[in-house]
Amino acid sequence: MKDQTRLRTWAIIFLLVSIFVGIALIPQLNRYGGESAATTVENQFMYEKSIDVLLMLLIGFGFLMVFVRKYGYTSITTTFLMVALSLPLYMLVRPYLWGSASALTATNISMLLFAEFAAASLLIAIGGPLGRINTSQSLLIGALFTPFYALNEWILFSGAVIPAGTVLDTAGSISIHAFGAYFALGLIIMLTAKKDRGVQVETSKRSNQFAMLGSAALWIFWPSFCSALVAVDKIPLVAINTIMALCGATIATYVFSVLIRGKIDIGDIANASLAGGVAIGASVANVTPGWSILIGSVAGAISVVGYTIIQPRLQKATGGVDTCGVHNLHGMPGVFGGLVALAFVVAPLWQLTGIGLTLVLAVTTGLAVGFIVSRLAP
Amino acid sequence: MKDQTRLRTWAIIFLLVSIFVGIALIPQLNRYGGESAATTVENQFMYEKSIDVLLMLLIGFGFLMVFVRKYGYTSITTTFLMVALSLPLYMLVRPYLWGSASALTATNISMLLFAEFAAASLLIAIGGPLGRINTSQSLLIGALFTPFYALNEWILFSGAVIPAGTVLDTAGSISIHAFGAYFALGLIIMLTAKKDRGVQVETSKRSNQFAMLGSAALWIFWPSFCSALVAVDKIPLVAINTIMALCGATIATYVFSVLIRGKIDIGDIANASLAGGVAIGASVANVTPGWSILIGSVAGAISVVGYTIIQPRLQKATGGVDTCGVHNLHGMPGVFGGLVALAFVVAPLWQLTGIGLTLVLAVTTGLAVGFIVSRLAP
Amino acid sequence: MKDQTRLRTWAIIFLLVSIFVGIALIPQLNRYGGESAATTVENQFMYEKSIDVLLMLLIGFGFLMVFVRKYGYTSITTTFLMVALSLPLYMLVRPYLWGSASALTATNISMLLFAEFAAASLLIAIGGPLGRINTSQSLLIGALFTPFYALNEWILFSGAVIPAGTVLDTAGSISIHAFGAYFALGLIIMLTAKKDRGVQVETSKRSNQFAMLGSAALWIFWPSFCSALVAVDKIPLVAINTIMALCGATIATYVFSVLIRGKIDIGDIANASLAGGVAIGASVANVTPGWSILIGSVAGAISVVGYTIIQPRLQKATGGVDTCGVHNLHGMPGVFGGLVALAFVVAPLWQLTGIGLTLVLAVTTGLAVGFIVSRLAP
Repeated sequence: MKDQTRLRTWAIIFLLVSIFVGIALIPQLNRYGGESAATTVENQFMYEKSIDVLLMLLIGFGFLMVFVRKYGYTSITTTFLMVALSLPLYMLVRPYLWGSASALTATNISMLLFAEFAAASLLIAIGGPLGRINTSQSLLIGALFTPFYALNEWILFSGAVIPAGTVLDTAGSISIHAFGAYFALGLIIMLTAKKDRGVQVETSKRSNQFAMLGSAALWIFWPSFCSALVAVDKIPLVAINTIMALCGATIATYVFSVLIRGKIDIGDIANASLAGGVAIGASVANVTPGWSILIGSVAGAISVVGYTIIQPRLQKATGGVDTCGVHNLHGMPGVFGGLVALAFVVAPLWQLTGIGLTLVLAVTTGLAVGFIVSRLAP
Repeated sequence: MKDQTRLRTWAIIFLLVSIFVGIALIPQLNRYGGESAATTVENQFMYEKSIDVLLMLLIGFGFLMVFVRKYGYTSITTTFLMVALSLPLYMLVRPYLWGSASALTATNISMLLFAEFAAASLLIAIGGPLGRINTSQSLLIGALFTPFYALNEWILFSGAVIPAGTVLDTAGSISIHAFGAYFALGLIIMLTAKKDRGVQVETSKRSNQFAMLGSAALWIFWPSFCSALVAVDKIPLVAINTIMALCGATIATYVFSVLIRGKIDIGDIANASLAGGVAIGASVANVTPGWSILIGSVAGAISVVGYTIIQPRLQKATGGVDTCGVHNLHGMPGVFGGLVALAFVVAPLWQLTGIGLTLVLAVTTGLAVGFIVSRLAP
Repeated sequence: MKDQTRLRTWAIIFLLVSIFVGIALIPQLNRYGGESAATTVENQFMYEKSIDVLLMLLIGFGFLMVFVRKYGYTSITTTFLMVALSLPLYMLVRPYLWGSASALTATNISMLLFAEFAAASLLIAIGGPLGRINTSQSLLIGALFTPFYALNEWILFSGAVIPAGTVLDTAGSISIHAFGAYFALGLIIMLTAKKDRGVQVETSKRSNQFAMLGSAALWIFWPSFCSALVAVDKIPLVAINTIMALCGATIATYVFSVLIRGKIDIGDIANASLAGGVAIGASVANVTPGWSILIGSVAGAISVVGYTIIQPRLQKATGGVDTCGVHNLHGMPGVFGGLVALAFVVAPLWQLTGIGLTLVLAVTTGLAVGFIVSRLAP
């Protein structure tokens, strides 16, 4: 009964928030113009990518997370709500942050793609405390995460803080994957109850066919994620590099899963195979297919080592339980990808500054949001 | 044994029908030309959309309907058969109806898209009596529905009855969704056995992960459904409006589901979240993203109210059991979408006439087909 | 324990192989140029197709094969590994075989599409012994299959053996489907243990919703498979022909499933519905939509007859158990498709030679690989 009351209250709050957002959006979301210099054909290509990325969000992340037994429904419902909340919210926030640095409006497909990247990063962040937070808490995290994500993106790429063009992160190894994963680290330190601390995430339960479906969806459409915003003539190279990195990571996952565990673990295959996509993100437009296989293989190996060896120690050290192991899939491979890109940047110090600032901002805002959420919706 | 005999008989009939259709198709389906004025690039864009809509049909509708316990297999098999039957059938019927008003031939991608819309409407109609009809009955409904659907489309858009261009229904709120849903209403009045009348559709059983997979597939590709036949330069706006409407409906579904039921219902999330896509259909090329959020939110609210409050009463009043609640998802939001478009039409009376004619034709032909089907294949 | 040792050993071998491949790839995969004469727009279209085909591989084949009870996980894991292994391997092998006959490099999207076709054929071949081989054996089969597949492709199309352009096989009825299926025939003769020989594949267990999901994914994206490498202006015709063939096969599957079994079998629907796509492959750019329906219907009928009548006899005759029935879905319909194309070729004898050489090469190399695999990894 008490539960119902709380839910109703939260529902009312969100009704008000929704109306507010709806109205607040009007001046900005109802203006035309600023459709960028993209041609009709380029817009159509970006449109196709935006649908592919949407599929990664709702089916990819949504189903990859259903392995949490008993929370299967919650994780899909939460995915829907997170996407529905963060897409318009990002579109609302971004123009205020970027100001004249970007003429993107809500009727521009590029804006939709940027908003989808924000939603992807949010879903990564939610993957950390998944199963230990309720829907209201998720919605609050979503509402608070999105502006911080946009802030970090603005720091890295707008030119206002770090010189424009000095951070190489074509498909978001740093700004999307690492940011989401280290934000999750902050969240789970605050949102892991004492009783959950000792609990080891049982990896054998992660494994099921729905998780593999989600994983397959991410694998398949990762080339669209990576090539969504690159120049049209770079798309073939970027797509093939991404696929080669995923192939490398998949083979490496098999090899290291068997070497470390003595058997193939389906949870490793479902997750670590994707680490190649995470790590190639930063330098995907600069490398060749052969090197992509090697970068992907290293990322797959890092990820398996993460799931098997690092995660239990990190859990002991921080007291936070990382349900989906986002630190292993998005955190370390994301940072690794950012470091790989050092080989291609003109000013390596700025690249390192970008990585460092991202990690600091992610962990501190994650801690802060975790604290707020643990107070307001216990 | 008797069952087997009946099945065999029906199989033979359909073998003959198939051969007949196959042969009948030959003069018309084997002619080239009439490929419309679309450029190669536009054709390719429409091709991509046609695949997306095909995915909505086979995976979206197919799996959204599997929640009917024990009928999971039947609903997917039926989906395959309905699509396989209605695509060629529509291509066969349409040119006879439209005559010189349309030069579309079977080798034109636009024709394929129109045929896919017909299949979508058929799947909506089948969603009503689902679980209480057998495969032979479904096939008969499919064979009879398609010509009536094409007739209604011809009335609304060919200019022969209602002046061309006066009905605004860009993505089929009225002609696809409302027509299918009200045809279903006619069907279920005729096809609900007395013993089923008292049975309330148990919404808790609707919920499962396959239904969410189907729902996600519909959500993701709805922008392609809406933008399939719009001018290429309108695609970004239409896509973003559709996504904003779906975001609004998803949030509103959460809010109203919690307010009315006191808890989140996965069946509501799976279904009512999509009502935004249904309702935005008519005016999607005319509104702005901000208004799309609001239209979607209202549609989501209408749909949840439909599932929780209206459906039990309607069931009592008509004696027909609407298994998938298509009236809540496609019926009322479709009509609402048609009414929203009144704000943008030059002749509101013709818009109202179009809505009215659609409802009358749908219910009466639904009743007639339901009667025939209940006689021939009891 | 012994099992673990063997797995570790194999893992090490594959680690070495992977490193070797990774390094071996470097000279070749790291060269730019040779991007073909395709325009940016054509490349983008091929890119979209390559993602669609990737989805067919990982979700389509991956889930269609999960019907094997207890092996559900293995079949999806194996699918991932087969794709990850064969894509780079094919890219490595092909240029050596074709030499100056093809300037394709690894940064060319056409190369990716050809590699995906090789992966599709490999997944077909693996479908035969599925459930009776372990992962190490699958990897070995994958490593050995790919060069033979490339060899057969080179024989048929490079002009070095059969005059270029005399074999009509636009979408691989012969080179992809029949080759994979008859290679599987060779494999299973060698890889069916005596204790498995008497076992009839229990078709009722094939049936489940994941298999239908895989089947739907194949159905939906088959038009992209068929139109991936055709000229852009042929895409609408090829897409519609493919869909019509699938519609015909789906209806025919229903009819023959009911006629022969006395009831609808979900395994038939999941598999034989796709036979239309297999059979139309060879002549898809040459026929009209009406004839496509008829070709598809015949293929569906052949496939159902295969599952119900031919498979038990073939199993008795060869002693090999075809787990997925790939001979019924890809073997006979593939050969039928190759024969249909006789109506459109200028030199029917060369077409027949192509079919014959494919079958002979497939069966003999399948037997050889099966023998090696049965020795090395028993």
